[in-house]
Amino acid sequence: MRIKAIAAALAFSFAGSAFADEGMWQPHQLPELEDILKSKGLAIDAKSISKLTEFPMNAVISLGGCTASFVSPKGLVVTNHHCAYGSIQYNSTTDNNILENGFLAKKPSEDLPAAPGSRVYVTEEVTDVTANVKKGTETLTGKARYEAIDANRKALVAECEEDKGYRCNVYTFHGGLEYYLIKSLEIKDVRLAYTPAMGVGKYGGDIDNWMWPRHTGDFAFYRAYVGKDGKPAEFSKDNVPFESNSFLSVSAKGVQEGDFVMVTGYPGRTNRYRVSPEVDYVFNTAYPLARKHNSKYVELIEENAPEGSQERIAYESTIAGYNNYIKNYGSMIESFKKGSMYTRKQQFEQDLQAWINSDSERKAKYGNVLADLEALVAESQKHNQRDRMLGYVHRSQMISTARMLYRLAVEKQKPDAERESGYQERDLPRIEARLKSMSRRYAEPVDKAILLHFLELYAALPANERITEVDSALALENGFNKAKHSAMLDDMYTNSKLADEKARLWMLDLDLAQLEQSNDPFVKYAKAIFSVMKSIEDQDKELVGKMQAARPALMEAIIAYNKSLDKPVYADANSTLRVTYGTVGGYSPQDGLVATPFTSLEGLLAKNTDVEPFNSPKKQNDLIKQKQYGDYTGGMNTVPVNFLSNVDTTGGNSGSPTLNGNAELVGLLFDGVYESIIGDWDYDENLNRSIHVDSRYMLWVMDKVDNAQNLLDEMKIVR
Amino acid sequence: MRIKAIAAALAFSFAGSAFADEGMWQPHQLPELEDILKSKGLAIDAKSISKLTEFPMNAVISLGGCTASFVSPKGLVVTNHHCAYGSIQYNSTTDNNILENGFLAKKPSEDLPAAPGSRVYVTEEVTDVTANVKKGTETLTGKARYEAIDANRKALVAECEEDKGYRCNVYTFHGGLEYYLIKSLEIKDVRLAYTPAMGVGKYGGDIDNWMWPRHTGDFAFYRAYVGKDGKPAEFSKDNVPFESNSFLSVSAKGVQEGDFVMVTGYPGRTNRYRVSPEVDYVFNTAYPLARKHNSKYVELIEENAPEGSQERIAYESTIAGYNNYIKNYGSMIESFKKGSMYTRKQQFEQDLQAWINSDSERKAKYGNVLADLEALVAESQKHNQRDRMLGYVHRSQMISTARMLYRLAVEKQKPDAERESGYQERDLPRIEARLKSMSRRYAEPVDKAILLHFLELYAALPANERITEVDSALALENGFNKAKHSAMLDDMYTNSKLADEKARLWMLDLDLAQLEQSNDPFVKYAKAIFSVMKSIEDQDKELVGKMQAARPALMEAIIAYNKSLDKPVYADANSTLRVTYGTVGGYSPQDGLVATPFTSLEGLLAKNTDVEPFNSPKKQNDLIKQKQYGDYTGGMNTVPVNFLSNVDTTGGNSGSPTLNGNAELVGLLFDGVYESIIGDWDYDENLNRSIHVDSRYMLWVMDKVDNAQNLLDEMKIVR
Repeated sequence: MRIKAIAAALAFSFAGSAFADEGMWQPHQLPELEDILKSKGLAIDAKSISKLTEFPMNAVISLGGCTASFVSPKGLVVTNHHCAYGSIQYNSTTDNNILENGFLAKKPSEDLPAAPGSRVYVTEEVTDVTANVKKGTETLTGKARYEAIDANRKALVAECEEDKGYRCNVYTFHGGLEYYLIKSLEIKDVRLAYTPAMGVGKYGGDIDNWMWPRHTGDFAFYRAYVGKDGKPAEFSKDNVPFESNSFLSVSAKGVQEGDFVMVTGYPGRTNRYRVSPEVDYVFNTAYPLARKHNSKYVELIEENAPEGSQERIAYESTIAGYNNYIKNYGSMIESFKKGSMYTRKQQFEQDLQAWINSDSERKAKYGNVLADLEALVAESQKHNQRDRMLGYVHRSQMISTARMLYRLAVEKQKPDAERESGYQERDLPRIEARLKSMSRRYAEPVDKAILLHFLELYAALPANERITEVDSALALENGFNKAKHSAMLDDMYTNSKLADEKARLWMLDLDLAQLEQSNDPFVKYAKAIFSVMKSIEDQDKELVGKMQAARPALMEAIIAYNKSLDKPVYADANSTLRVTYGTVGGYSPQDGLVATPFTSLEGLLAKNTDVEPFNSPKKQNDLIKQKQYGDYTGGMNTVPVNFLSNVDTTGGNSGSPTLNGNAELVGLLFDGVYESIIGDWDYDENLNRSIHVDSRYMLWVMDKVDNAQNLLDEMKIVR
Repeated sequence: MRIKAIAAALAFSFAGSAFADEGMWQPHQLPELEDILKSKGLAIDAKSISKLTEFPMNAVISLGGCTASFVSPKGLVVTNHHCAYGSIQYNSTTDNNILENGFLAKKPSEDLPAAPGSRVYVTEEVTDVTANVKKGTETLTGKARYEAIDANRKALVAECEEDKGYRCNVYTFHGGLEYYLIKSLEIKDVRLAYTPAMGVGKYGGDIDNWMWPRHTGDFAFYRAYVGKDGKPAEFSKDNVPFESNSFLSVSAKGVQEGDFVMVTGYPGRTNRYRVSPEVDYVFNTAYPLARKHNSKYVELIEENAPEGSQERIAYESTIAGYNNYIKNYGSMIESFKKGSMYTRKQQFEQDLQAWINSDSERKAKYGNVLADLEALVAESQKHNQRDRMLGYVHRSQMISTARMLYRLAVEKQKPDAERESGYQERDLPRIEARLKSMSRRYAEPVDKAILLHFLELYAALPANERITEVDSALALENGFNKAKHSAMLDDMYTNSKLADEKARLWMLDLDLAQLEQSNDPFVKYAKAIFSVMKSIEDQDKELVGKMQAARPALMEAIIAYNKSLDKPVYADANSTLRVTYGTVGGYSPQDGLVATPFTSLEGLLAKNTDVEPFNSPKKQNDLIKQKQYGDYTGGMNTVPVNFLSNVDTTGGNSGSPTLNGNAELVGLLFDGVYESIIGDWDYDENLNRSIHVDSRYMLWVMDKVDNAQNLLDEMKIVR
């Protein structure tokens, strides 16, 4: 493992204990944090956490979008129930409804195959490739710079992936100040070993999503398999459980209020360093409009896919996804209005500029970085009305599928390395999976109604914000006419074959010349707008290329400024492995209310209505009534179910092991509280709280409710 | 003041401090409670609270449905904003919207007349009239007993009301074990002296109703006026402010967590001593059905009175009232399912029966009391389907008005003393007011749609649960037919004059012979069903007469049993003056959450959105931002807005003064928390919490926001 941190830029010390537990730290930064980690309660050597190939970091793995960890020498993996949901659903049948009832393999040979495409990624190498990525870009700007960087990144990935069994990616840190190549072992044979019933694993469902108090047993167990040679292999009966270099012990003692905890995982994306005009636009325009349009989107689905219909089943997960976003936007808009993020952000920028201006050398170097970026931000927002409405129009599954197929045919004409990201050979399995999954997620009346609605909104844009080619392809030159366009869409859907899976897969193999002959109205639309959309994309790349220079320049200034204040700097989340630490504790969600840090079995039972999502299994209810706590109270008067801490997490952290000072697993991170949703933009130490499944509850369910003694025997339980 | 309590039956001592702060005590019981009151923090003599004509009890008054108190020597009365709401609305015009903006009379001559019918009742005498009421009933049973009791009560009231200026009522305690005659001075000239803006007085509106955290300034000030002779008089310019014998001081120091508080007021109705089959029926049948039907009722109003229409305005308060009930039922059903009231009730009945059976003398006396009452309860439930549906049918304003007019004409044939309660001379002003107010609360399409809906449900009852006369009057002999009955109702509404106020008032003066000639279809309906409804009423009276004997018998046994356990007994609330005491403190509404006992100005500001009902006045917001707390913090770091205590209250207590150990006003009771709604049936010391406006917030608003120095000068503020 080679890590060459730009340690100089990131070095800092802690002025005092007043520093809040903010920060998603790259492992290599942890030795710098040793003093504070020790003072908070870390018992093991901070350096050990900084080494990816050593315990405990080599036990922490990515599922792609979620985090997990090894908890036995035999490849046993624990993650969230909601992270394994697809695999549980995949194995569930009306005869054997494991989603509803849970599942336990009594021995590894009974493990069930996970959903197609399931992966376990073990990060093995993190290499600073900043110099390699920027090589040859020194004199370039705009699109040329963007493309040079893109080519360098692709070359690094391609070289890295020559080592079979690995997946490689180049990740951007600080908006392009640094680039790291991350090489992960890609385990392709993943199986489901155990899941509790949905009344445990998804207790509270969407109602309790983002909410506290919480009583969800959001855990499930996979097992990773490899070929007999120990190397990743496709699913095979002959494969054997993967023997990881280390695994986590699981604590039956748990934590108490005030205890140190840390969470290691793969947080997805944060925006903590955005400039104030970006914040203004997002919270005052983009999120409110997204909430409005997405609400309409859901409404249109519900109108055109009546409850109980096949169509509705096809769109259930789409609705759930949109509703989750709507709840998210709502929380963030609310928090933004109540809070002071915007004024603090403006104040910070003023202070930064004043600090820059106070020194002539600094002024020469950084004097314009803020203004430069803000100018680019303004430019990027110029066509946001157009981009938003066209974006919704192009969400039509017929249009997006046609555009994807057409683009692929175009890209296929180039050598693989020169193709656009997402259309390279390595991406083909995902494209094929998407074309297949559409069959389960599409209904013509819904797609058509949504397209018709957003066509009308697009058509209402000022003429100079519309695109001639789109207008002419969709007969909008003289504006929108509901009857006319409704009939036009009827024709298009009737004459398209894209609703047919076989037709889609057949088109996947066509070359551009063949596809251009297609009479499919959506393919014709994709063709008609291809050039103009490509030119818009090129303009965007020009802008991105400029931003890739401007944002790092600002970040360099921010890092220097923070260093002058002895303030540490961590990079925005970018789906790479991070460590965050903090303390178990509650908070006050609003004046007059306090959220206490633990929930209990008794609270779980009090919520039970026997109606989904509050349908706790009868056996669990009986055990609670009998106070059969076993050895899982950790000194409390109950078995704690979920707990709160102030660790700094976001989507992608789901399933992350929550560790105590000895790096024992004391919980699984699975959510944040409602007031912390804005945390992606702004960490508020008073409101930012993460929600964890308590390891005591997980072990209690395994032991008492589900009789998973075979797994407990395989694991190392600290009692 | 003559009080002859059956002290022997109620004497008890407190076994220990484990006794929860449950109980709505009659003032004469308080000396018995002196030890515990003193230990909790009462500083004044408990005996003084037991005397209605002495301080502080003579300062506590009823508004009829709400409680209030005198707070100056010049008749100044403080109550809740929601209790004075009708009067505020009555004086509000588009030009001078005092509902929205608030109102302050800078001197008494600027006071505004309260809404017609507004009254201040000062309880002056409470007399035990049990013997008088039961006189001559010893050998009677059923309807005969009911009517004898009714006649005795009416005679007592009539005799008492010969003293002009007084309103008298006989109240039933313990289901008929005791009767008290209560004589109250009836002050008829009530005026509005001061109200804060709606953004203070109704801050949070229906959304926050029953909720904690709460930030409502639910207070307003009346002034009571009497004739120059000091006696009650109708409104006149020449009237003078009423000089009460005493008034309450108002504390600017307020209370702290753990402080003793007591609330004196007029709680409306509780059902703490109902037997288990009644509880079973109410929570498992009546409330769920009421919630369902009332929700449909609101739905029908909203469908037939589109938002923004005149019709909708007419029904706004009806909708709010129904929604309040729906919320209430919802909370109670929820609490019932979660809680153990039913099993505890059953256990209590078993224990009681065992105690009765364990002694032959007791067994002879009380052996059957429980079974007897339960048999009557079963009988009373026999026709509940019919009664429920017919009840909804008869809620049609056209039908209920016609039935009231017809019944009045019937009753008017008898001497006043023999008329049914509600139809005596003393009731006529209320009947007239109701006929007038209908003009503002009625819309034909709504009334018709509701009637049509419930006709259909009534028609679906089994034949033996329907009433022949109703069926034939409404052409339901061959069942319900939507088209046919819709046309029938169209005809009835078209041919009725009852929608016209003048016609209604004209009919009020008709005698029975004249009314019987009426061709009004609703009057004809009232006439057609009169006899059968009267016979059902008579059957009900037969049952009530039996219950009036059975319930006291059970209560006597319960009181004796509790006495044997050293447990105190208070009577169910019945709109008479009571005292409840307790402690300032929070609670845990659910596992993982704690409600803290105070809210703050900062919390109020955090809720502000400038959109009703969260539209705090700008001046208030500015004062909060500037931390202009004045001398109203009581040692806290803010001005406390609302607080929680465990005093035992219910509807009717609204506006009650909350007193500290020195009988100084430290708040106004105005609501209970959501989890305490079931408190009308069952006091749970863990969940029963009342919500008070803090006197510090009230004084702060008066002083800083509304410049009501003239009132503050008139009041006695304890600083």
